[in-house]
Amino acid sequence: MDYPLSYVAHVRVNYFDTDRMGVVWHGNYIKYFETAREELFRSLGMPYSELEKSGVMMPIVDLAAEYRKSAFYDDVLAIEVTVPEPPRARICVEYVVRDGAGDVCATGHTTLAFIDATTRRPCRPPREMR
Amino acid sequence: MDYPLSYVAHVRVNYFDTDRMGVVWHGNYIKYFETAREELFRSLGMPYSELEKSGVMMPIVDLAAEYRKSAFYDDVLAIEVTVPEPPRARICVEYVVRDGAGDVCATGHTTLAFIDATTRRPCRPPREMR
Amino acid sequence: MDYPLSYVAHVRVNYFDTDRMGVVWHGNYIKYFETAREELFRSLGMPYSELEKSGVMMPIVDLAAEYRKSAFYDDVLAIEVTVPEPPRARICVEYVVRDGAGDVCATGHTTLAFIDATTRRPCRPPREMR
Amino acid sequence: MDYPLSYVAHVRVNYFDTDRMGVVWHGNYIKYFETAREELFRSLGMPYSELEKSGVMMPIVDLAAEYRKSAFYDDVLAIEVTVPEPPRARICVEYVVRDGAGDVCATGHTTLAFIDATTRRPCRPPREMR
Repeated sequence: MDYPLSYVAHVRVNYFDTDRMGVVWHGNYIKYFETAREELFRSLGMPYSELEKSGVMMPIVDLAAEYRKSAFYDDVLAIEVTVPEPPRARICVEYVVRDGAGDVCATGHTTLAFIDATTRRPCRPPREMR
Repeated sequence: MDYPLSYVAHVRVNYFDTDRMGVVWHGNYIKYFETAREELFRSLGMPYSELEKSGVMMPIVDLAAEYRKSAFYDDVLAIEVTVPEPPRARICVEYVVRDGAGDVCATGHTTLAFIDATTRRPCRPPREMR
Repeated sequence: MDYPLSYVAHVRVNYFDTDRMGVVWHGNYIKYFETAREELFRSLGMPYSELEKSGVMMPIVDLAAEYRKSAFYDDVLAIEVTVPEPPRARICVEYVVRDGAGDVCATGHTTLAFIDATTRRPCRPPREMR
Repeated sequence: MDYPLSYVAHVRVNYFDTDRMGVVWHGNYIKYFETAREELFRSLGMPYSELEKSGVMMPIVDLAAEYRKSAFYDDVLAIEVTVPEPPRARICVEYVVRDGAGDVCATGHTTLAFIDATTRRPCRPPREMR
């Protein structure tokens, strides 16, 4: 697999994603990150659902997000997701969320661990990711 | 156990419960119903977490809600939850949500089944509920 | 506009849509209903975002859902949404959610009112819907 | 007002907060942070709802979270929230989430800006916070 891995996912902002400020509630970007991350792995033929079936779970170890511009109801957001380098004990994933004008609404990153689903102990990344 | 069972739970409306219309997004009342239902069972010494440990799961079979008045950010809502009669194969639970002025914001009901957690087949209600 | 109106929207079940029972949490179907309803109106050239800009809001008056079969993480659900007849003071919308095997996971309906966004009083449905 | 400000809020983990891994979905901690932050300001006589009425909005500029131990359904979590120093253009808020055993499940921080609700431009923090 050739690193960096990258993918652009698109999500439309739902009514229920907004809050009374009239914009996307900040915590919902974490959902957009997850959706984009899963689409990246699916696009590479390694859907996360298959990883779990093979006995590997990938819990989030840390996350961060920076907010630059509000996103609004009905916007179609482009979430660019990148894995800069092959995982060792953990895997870093980066995100840039842009609105229809191409402006950056938010950036972020998450770190995920690899856990054996049975023992719930750390394990090596799946061979396909190395 | 003496039927009807009833309880009044209180929840404060979070910012993230609202939508861009400035009111609680209608789907979030389903969360308030669930919180109130669980507090009812907890108040009776049968927390749902214990039921699950004893091998019984209670999936939702159907639900309904009627909306009468908007609820707003920071409102403290009173959710009156009632189980009118002992469960047979299923259990009916009713809800009335009132705001601080005592006005009814929404009413609803849910029907839940009893499922054996291992076989995922219908089972009898726990003895304590009969 | 020729009634009944209908549309089939597709949503993929996210990890965050599931609960510890391992299936889609029942309240999340309300989100699927909303997404499908909005895609229906968008497909007819009347996105709800445009309706709101034109001064009409459509709050939910009531909803109901029946659950028949669990849906799982990573399932692609087909949500068939139907408006059986032209709206009068209110509009009824019906939903059938099927999984990849074509099995019905849930059915439901919502009733929506038409409200003048400025006065927040009931108003007539938009001309395009009649 | 004497800095640091601090408060401990308690939240019970709902069924709908969990995911199919059987633990609290990581994004839901952002909700716990928000709930705790709002309880802190309410405890100081400055509920955020009043701030908004006075014309000040506090959007999130950035956030971070680290996850150390899973939290489970029905756990009562203690969220310790701290504002280490008086706000200037922005305000930093820190969080530590502990479970019933006193173990740290997660830590985090958020930075919030002060925005004039009318102009949506940066403004000074409210006098009461200084």
